[in-house]
Amino acid sequence: MNFASDNWAGAHPKIAQRLLEVASGFSAPYGASALDRKIEKRFNELFEREVAVYFVSTGTAANSLALAAVNRPGGVSFCHREAHMLEDECGAPEFFTHGARLAPVDGENGKIDPHKLKAEIERFPPNFVHAGQPMAISITQATEIGTLYQTDDIAAIAKIAQANGLPLHMDGARFANALVALELTPAEMTWKRGVDIVSFGATKNGCWCAEALIFMNPELSKDLPFIRKRAAQLVSKSRFIASQFDAYLHDELWLDMARYANAMAERLQNGIINAEHARLAWHAEANEVFVVLDKALADQLQEQGAVFYQWNPPRAKPELLGQNEVLVRLVTSFATEADQVDRFLELLR
Amino acid sequence: MNFASDNWAGAHPKIAQRLLEVASGFSAPYGASALDRKIEKRFNELFEREVAVYFVSTGTAANSLALAAVNRPGGVSFCHREAHMLEDECGAPEFFTHGARLAPVDGENGKIDPHKLKAEIERFPPNFVHAGQPMAISITQATEIGTLYQTDDIAAIAKIAQANGLPLHMDGARFANALVALELTPAEMTWKRGVDIVSFGATKNGCWCAEALIFMNPELSKDLPFIRKRAAQLVSKSRFIASQFDAYLHDELWLDMARYANAMAERLQNGIINAEHARLAWHAEANEVFVVLDKALADQLQEQGAVFYQWNPPRAKPELLGQNEVLVRLVTSFATEADQVDRFLELLR
Amino acid sequence: MNFASDNWAGAHPKIAQRLLEVASGFSAPYGASALDRKIEKRFNELFEREVAVYFVSTGTAANSLALAAVNRPGGVSFCHREAHMLEDECGAPEFFTHGARLAPVDGENGKIDPHKLKAEIERFPPNFVHAGQPMAISITQATEIGTLYQTDDIAAIAKIAQANGLPLHMDGARFANALVALELTPAEMTWKRGVDIVSFGATKNGCWCAEALIFMNPELSKDLPFIRKRAAQLVSKSRFIASQFDAYLHDELWLDMARYANAMAERLQNGIINAEHARLAWHAEANEVFVVLDKALADQLQEQGAVFYQWNPPRAKPELLGQNEVLVRLVTSFATEADQVDRFLELLR
Amino acid sequence: MNFASDNWAGAHPKIAQRLLEVASGFSAPYGASALDRKIEKRFNELFEREVAVYFVSTGTAANSLALAAVNRPGGVSFCHREAHMLEDECGAPEFFTHGARLAPVDGENGKIDPHKLKAEIERFPPNFVHAGQPMAISITQATEIGTLYQTDDIAAIAKIAQANGLPLHMDGARFANALVALELTPAEMTWKRGVDIVSFGATKNGCWCAEALIFMNPELSKDLPFIRKRAAQLVSKSRFIASQFDAYLHDELWLDMARYANAMAERLQNGIINAEHARLAWHAEANEVFVVLDKALADQLQEQGAVFYQWNPPRAKPELLGQNEVLVRLVTSFATEADQVDRFLELLR
Repeated sequence: MNFASDNWAGAHPKIAQRLLEVASGFSAPYGASALDRKIEKRFNELFEREVAVYFVSTGTAANSLALAAVNRPGGVSFCHREAHMLEDECGAPEFFTHGARLAPVDGENGKIDPHKLKAEIERFPPNFVHAGQPMAISITQATEIGTLYQTDDIAAIAKIAQANGLPLHMDGARFANALVALELTPAEMTWKRGVDIVSFGATKNGCWCAEALIFMNPELSKDLPFIRKRAAQLVSKSRFIASQFDAYLHDELWLDMARYANAMAERLQNGIINAEHARLAWHAEANEVFVVLDKALADQLQEQGAVFYQWNPPRAKPELLGQNEVLVRLVTSFATEADQVDRFLELLR
Repeated sequence: MNFASDNWAGAHPKIAQRLLEVASGFSAPYGASALDRKIEKRFNELFEREVAVYFVSTGTAANSLALAAVNRPGGVSFCHREAHMLEDECGAPEFFTHGARLAPVDGENGKIDPHKLKAEIERFPPNFVHAGQPMAISITQATEIGTLYQTDDIAAIAKIAQANGLPLHMDGARFANALVALELTPAEMTWKRGVDIVSFGATKNGCWCAEALIFMNPELSKDLPFIRKRAAQLVSKSRFIASQFDAYLHDELWLDMARYANAMAERLQNGIINAEHARLAWHAEANEVFVVLDKALADQLQEQGAVFYQWNPPRAKPELLGQNEVLVRLVTSFATEADQVDRFLELLR
Repeated sequence: MNFASDNWAGAHPKIAQRLLEVASGFSAPYGASALDRKIEKRFNELFEREVAVYFVSTGTAANSLALAAVNRPGGVSFCHREAHMLEDECGAPEFFTHGARLAPVDGENGKIDPHKLKAEIERFPPNFVHAGQPMAISITQATEIGTLYQTDDIAAIAKIAQANGLPLHMDGARFANALVALELTPAEMTWKRGVDIVSFGATKNGCWCAEALIFMNPELSKDLPFIRKRAAQLVSKSRFIASQFDAYLHDELWLDMARYANAMAERLQNGIINAEHARLAWHAEANEVFVVLDKALADQLQEQGAVFYQWNPPRAKPELLGQNEVLVRLVTSFATEADQVDRFLELLR
Repeated sequence: MNFASDNWAGAHPKIAQRLLEVASGFSAPYGASALDRKIEKRFNELFEREVAVYFVSTGTAANSLALAAVNRPGGVSFCHREAHMLEDECGAPEFFTHGARLAPVDGENGKIDPHKLKAEIERFPPNFVHAGQPMAISITQATEIGTLYQTDDIAAIAKIAQANGLPLHMDGARFANALVALELTPAEMTWKRGVDIVSFGATKNGCWCAEALIFMNPELSKDLPFIRKRAAQLVSKSRFIASQFDAYLHDELWLDMARYANAMAERLQNGIINAEHARLAWHAEANEVFVVLDKALADQLQEQGAVFYQWNPPRAKPELLGQNEVLVRLVTSFATEADQVDRFLELLR
């Protein structure tokens, strides 16, 4: 009954198997091998345009390098107040950008509110050096709280980005989960709605360590090869990342894993809706289910073998919780087993 | 006939196999799993003391984080003029240290000359703010040109480090190759001779992506957990690095691979000594052989299928080369086959 | 009728005169002259303890170097949401600290609310690398909106700082104005209440360019000489700053100028209280008066020769303003003339 | 007998007087006053083209901001091995550029040797991420050792800069001394020979604190307003810098002071040529005279009241010095008195 996080899972057997297959023989390092080339082409197909692809070792690196690529002196990037890059990366974006700032924007359901975004950007009049200058907007899809930007939501933010000449980045640590939930193509969920840069995460969805930073307009990343090397994110035996993507993107494995993870989340959600002693904090739209329950019950579940995180204030908004209640986050993945979900729901009843 | 670099090889089958074995099941991410703990203990045994161990994804990250851990304002680190961190990391050490400087020190055979090191350090009188302040010394073992610091060499540099209150770092991208060549234990090659920090590389010696940064005195790394996270080098599914080390350090696999690579280099070297149209640039002591030959011959060998890099000035010192000659670097690894070495030597004759 | 800012004034004649007097002769640069020494001693007297004093060229430099001196990886400094360092320094604190973060804390009257400060600090559990780590607290005295921390206010924040092992910094761009308003000694307003570092501003109070960064515990600034030089803030002919302080701190000139500026602000405030078409936004406690009036009236006053800034949302809180109203900031200094104040008040009637 | 440095002098009476004159009245801060505008126009006249002008508080700031304006990831700037920015700024260029590197280039007489410059640049093949990328070239005029780049010297370096797409910066801490010695106009010594950016120093030549960073092509500095503010180098009461330049550039005061300083250096030099117990280290071309003499004699001169620096190895090249000899630097300025020069020469005899 492990619902702690999708990064508690290991790798899908097909991913690990592929690594075994490509282990022998020589190939050019630093992204120069035939397999690297093949995967880059695969991303072109996937996004239906010629994109620039950069493999990196962590999602934090992908997000931070995205901002570093569009860095400006006194730059300010706008993201949701609960965004991973703001809350959970120890200031990596600031490190990679030499101190550009992240400005939190509020919004319901873990999503940036376009009106509030606009108001925040207006705090920075053009050429007013005292305030600094806007630099980028970043959205998270699926969001940190398991909700989704609908295509219209993305387009509304992209419109503001364009009006202000700002690149729009999507933190896609759970890109696949969002994609299958919305039944969109990668192109539809990104550049067709105005997204310029994507952190295309695969690690949380069944890989070991495979993240790709994708630029819809390769020109925007012209400095990135140097930035990435300098940031120690150019891995030498790059086929170890390329081969993971090779298996991941083959025969819809990635979409199947995401669909499966989402289905397990739905199974959890449906069970919780009917549970007497727990309630949904909000509607889950991807592979994360947030539940409010009595602290005592949460502790008891953990003693009975369920693994998950309890969030108290300030991490959980106080207004969500009644007395003695906690917020519990349940995350599913390709590795979640249906009978474990059912056992958990049983314990909950 | 691939002698391009040890990072052109893939992973040893036992490494890849181990990844397959640990792919299933859940385990705590970010270095908190039982397997991570096991490997940390294994390093304690290996170094015969309680060390602090940090997994990272590249050798560049290990070197750069080593310096970041001991960073000082206006800091200057001393390394050999041909050190990887100075020549081949795109300024990553400067990036990770927010602009601390690398000062090149000369010395024969790719090794820092202790007298020159001392003279360089003397350029920085205490509390003279205009010049900056010494911060660290870094040596590379085996060196970038395939030579070795003998234990006395290390001790001589460590003595200067200690006299100046400077931590001594060892870039061990080819640590195992040096260790088996010198027939030393890890402790003997490091802290028993005054080394404080080691970039313990495994990637070049048969892993996919496994680098560990080792601090002999854990206290020296007290800020590193934050620095590493911030530098996007805390991988989530850390068992994927831990498991590589698990296989690597088991049953002397790492030492066997290094011994084999060195033996292949010796086989190459012995053949070249007897070759009419080539000469050793200097004596190879680990798994890299540097050869001087006619440019035309080098080109011909490459046409015949040999893969290696040609170094011209300024990369190769001009005084080494006669007219129309180039310096050729031949690197061996666990994946080098003896018959390929022999075929290459035959072509050379 | 210039109420734009205290930095629109020039220098007090005694300051300028002193510069003329010390212009001839030779003296050691970079803070090593006898005059530099004299001023350092003067600061020891002033603060009734042995402090470390660093001259710098701007208030932004003083604030940023204060944070740089106590920098930690992943560090987070807490300041009021409207603090100058957060709103008006183009991210200089982030630049000087290589990307440490400023966390805004709310509070009434431009002052940090201790309870909210505590809650914000609690977002950073010890050793939780994902969030980063608290690093410093900064208060502004007088605040950006012309109010004052009472001694109890300072002590309440200092208590939280000490409980969390955080240095407490005071941005004293208007230190003198606060001091005379509160009728305190420098010691009473700082270290006797728990303040560790002071940006001691003199530029806004009648100097040309004279800022001193003061550390109550000199040990805390042991790296600062290198940091300051590296940040290009070690001026060569340092007597030009020292001599300004020499005149400034002589015979209570600094206190007299601050008292005068505050008195002019009070004169303005008293007039506005009785004005029909304007109201105080809040009670002015130092040398800044914030007034709400009709936009049309504000424009008219400016046409009639009054110089001041109009603040609209988001700079002015929307809830402060009725329809067609703006917030107007009126700042006084040693150079403000009483008859200009009276003329302005007349126009307002 | 003070020959320690031109920054041991104070300010010329006309400079100090001008500060007194502009002390009263209100004017817009942060470079927005009428006086600021006037000086900007004065620089346009001086350079015979529309330049961008940025006042800063130190020469180190000017140099560092010049590089920051043209910064590139993995960037490498080339300067003479003895350049001030490399030897005497505590790594400020690295700080302002977030860790771009300074690459030392050798050359006789304190000047970059164009052939060696070319060879150093060739170490960085295009798009080779491991090495980094060239970013700028910087020359010092007059050089750190009191010699001069002739116009042909500048043009030869500019040709290499242009061929490699690199901006050419001139550190003009002693710009005026060079200008009058070469009998050139500012335009002739800079952009007419291919110089793109000038650190136009006035502090060493009779001002208190007045440095201007000049861009021949204003477009090259489009980010600089934000960079400067962020670096805490935007002074508030900017008229205090503008007024110094106002006096400095009026009626050839700046050229007169430089001519005088150079004449004093020549007087020293002529005396030393005829001295029995001292010899010129090299021919002085501006306002610095380097002399080799017995350590005992140098000490004796200092005891007799002469103030100057003694340079031993490594600061002084060992090959310059006979046994028991030291290198002595004698710097003159507007404040040097002829009878003090004569007295010094007398002591030397």
